[in-house]
Amino acid sequence: MTRIYFDHAAATPVLPEALEAMVPFLKDEFGNPQSFHQFSRKAKQAIEQARHQVARFINAPAESIIFTASASESNNLALKGFALANKSRGNHIVVSAIEHFSVLEPVKTLKRLGFDYTILPVDQYGLVDIEQLKRALRPETILVSIMHANNEIGTIEPLKEIVAVCHEKNVLIHSDGTAAVGRIPVDVTELGVDAYSFSAQSFYGPKGAATLYLKPGKRIVPLIEGGIQEKGRRAGTENVPAIVGMGKAAEICLKQIDQWSEKMQALARRIVDELPKRVERLVFTGHPEKRLPGHISLCVEFVEGEAMLLSLDDQGIAAASGSACTARSLKASHVLLAIGLPHAVAQSSLVLTLGKDNTDADVDYFLTQFPTIVERLRSFSPLYARYIKGEDPYQFKPGADEHQTGHEPENRENIGEG
Amino acid sequence: MTRIYFDHAAATPVLPEALEAMVPFLKDEFGNPQSFHQFSRKAKQAIEQARHQVARFINAPAESIIFTASASESNNLALKGFALANKSRGNHIVVSAIEHFSVLEPVKTLKRLGFDYTILPVDQYGLVDIEQLKRALRPETILVSIMHANNEIGTIEPLKEIVAVCHEKNVLIHSDGTAAVGRIPVDVTELGVDAYSFSAQSFYGPKGAATLYLKPGKRIVPLIEGGIQEKGRRAGTENVPAIVGMGKAAEICLKQIDQWSEKMQALARRIVDELPKRVERLVFTGHPEKRLPGHISLCVEFVEGEAMLLSLDDQGIAAASGSACTARSLKASHVLLAIGLPHAVAQSSLVLTLGKDNTDADVDYFLTQFPTIVERLRSFSPLYARYIKGEDPYQFKPGADEHQTGHEPENRENIGEG
Repeated sequence: MTRIYFDHAAATPVLPEALEAMVPFLKDEFGNPQSFHQFSRKAKQAIEQARHQVARFINAPAESIIFTASASESNNLALKGFALANKSRGNHIVVSAIEHFSVLEPVKTLKRLGFDYTILPVDQYGLVDIEQLKRALRPETILVSIMHANNEIGTIEPLKEIVAVCHEKNVLIHSDGTAAVGRIPVDVTELGVDAYSFSAQSFYGPKGAATLYLKPGKRIVPLIEGGIQEKGRRAGTENVPAIVGMGKAAEICLKQIDQWSEKMQALARRIVDELPKRVERLVFTGHPEKRLPGHISLCVEFVEGEAMLLSLDDQGIAAASGSACTARSLKASHVLLAIGLPHAVAQSSLVLTLGKDNTDADVDYFLTQFPTIVERLRSFSPLYARYIKGEDPYQFKPGADEHQTGHEPENRENIGEG
Repeated sequence: MTRIYFDHAAATPVLPEALEAMVPFLKDEFGNPQSFHQFSRKAKQAIEQARHQVARFINAPAESIIFTASASESNNLALKGFALANKSRGNHIVVSAIEHFSVLEPVKTLKRLGFDYTILPVDQYGLVDIEQLKRALRPETILVSIMHANNEIGTIEPLKEIVAVCHEKNVLIHSDGTAAVGRIPVDVTELGVDAYSFSAQSFYGPKGAATLYLKPGKRIVPLIEGGIQEKGRRAGTENVPAIVGMGKAAEICLKQIDQWSEKMQALARRIVDELPKRVERLVFTGHPEKRLPGHISLCVEFVEGEAMLLSLDDQGIAAASGSACTARSLKASHVLLAIGLPHAVAQSSLVLTLGKDNTDADVDYFLTQFPTIVERLRSFSPLYARYIKGEDPYQFKPGADEHQTGHEPENRENIGEG
């Protein structure tokens, strides 16, 4: 049975070394790290070792690492925790339009608690505009949250410049690093961010372990309160096995990331170069150069994203359409709408996120199978039928035409990867 | 090397069957449950199977089970989530004085957000008084949170009566079941609670998996927002292996709990009967009959709790003093102060929580070692020196005497287990 995995953004397999490191803590070393006895001692030490491993991975001091259970929890903690800790300084928050919902929903909740927010638009590549960010900052702005890279379109934001703009105005800057970590080397000290979220499942660690990096000296109100764990910043018994697995994965990824990324990128380039020769009407999304290695995102016009995933799955190929967290909600991706794609195009999204274990054979197989799948799905498509007849497949209403400028099918193939 | 584990309230070992069930999800079945492909399908199914197993364990419908990462998270979600969802109905919350800090801290935070709260005192056994509860309820009361059983003193609260009082006044009732689950059978439908927190590590499941039971039809504001997981009630990629382990442990515990509890209780009774014959000046805490099986809590006068734990650990015996979450904070337990013990006595706390695998040999060894440990520690104790000389060891100041009524050393041995 064919098993080709192109959905590493949703979850990665766990490194055997990480699993091996976890096992003792699922067996004999089961004590609560906060207890005072032999059953807990190794658990306590193992957490601190993992904290150092994760800290080194992002070039941070160990005390800045807060272990959480998911990147979504880290994002919620950063947004709500920074907002509540800085309420006396101001009430305004800025986020980009392409943030994950675990950033966007907390700002809506904060609005009900007396905060205000601005959603920063992005350009056709998904890039935040630095001048627009400057204009969005008000005297009462306390926090900006802009992701390091986008999971759906692969674009890498100019984070260092964003940090500089925020810090000049004495505004805290949090970044969601979920998509970036494990694909590009991350140095939070060099970036200068005040907080940074990421999870182990992005870099071959287990589910259930994630981190909020919090720059030393920055205060945060905990989301989960009532325990001395993580220096009072996150209550609840530590998930020792998952944390240990995250530490081990971080240690290995730090050493291997350049090699892994180079390999992934070479495979991704083959797909991006070859696919347009085999399938017409593809709209590559995201920035052509400022993008994550091994990340391929496109819209396949006249085909439903979900139908593509099911057909690919029938052929043993695992892929995504939009983010894992919204895919089942059957809405058009807010990210694709934010970069200006019409609904009908956005719903034909395909995201392939390669990993360290993918091979040329995987790519060959995909390149062989995919054109047949698209051909078959398009044969059922009323949009495609109109296109073939030379009609406007999307039947844009007169008023909507203008909005689509820059996303006419003729131009789309130019919005491609490198 | 001796390894005797009497700290099951802090964490239990993981059942081999639970670990076995987890392993596939740490290996081949690593997909994100929200993805659309073969790598995620079994993960998705496994979570739903675990949801049914956990639901059956507490006699609840499957849709009422919200998976979280810790009982602390469940408590935070219940308190903050119910408060925010019912803000329009009122702003008053009632909690007992012996709640875990993951209940007590959220109410303090809610106070800063415009809520008010009452802390209900308990009697010398740690029992909430139903009449006092009735008087504490105001027209604007929206929520009561009273634990099912206390982790430090083992007392089981009259939860069914508490629920009846709350529901008569149309007040929501949440209960922290962390200490109860795994020691006594729990039927949330019969209890009638609106929400109930517990974690897998209480019943031989893994760390990193816990539940908030939420009665169908009750609305809650999520703590971790921005994902469709858990029907929008808790965002973040599901910790599949831990959830699967929790489900398997629940299935086994449901079948075995009566047998396990009977065995634990017989061992506990031996300790409670024998220990006072071998060590003088013990103050057993908690209710003598209305208490958790296998749970032994006492104060060993004139000895520091931490010193006892270290000495026991030297002899290979793992025990606790107060809860794992506060033990390292070196404060006297708020629970022991709430039942009226003086600081000096409260600091000599010892909590032994037995488990299904403990044996008569473990108890024999403990009963042999413990008197020697106490004798040695008391030989260093200035309090004990005064006691031996016939002086008042605690040198109570005149005004404080009255407060101690009912906890004179003479009476303490009567506050014992069954």
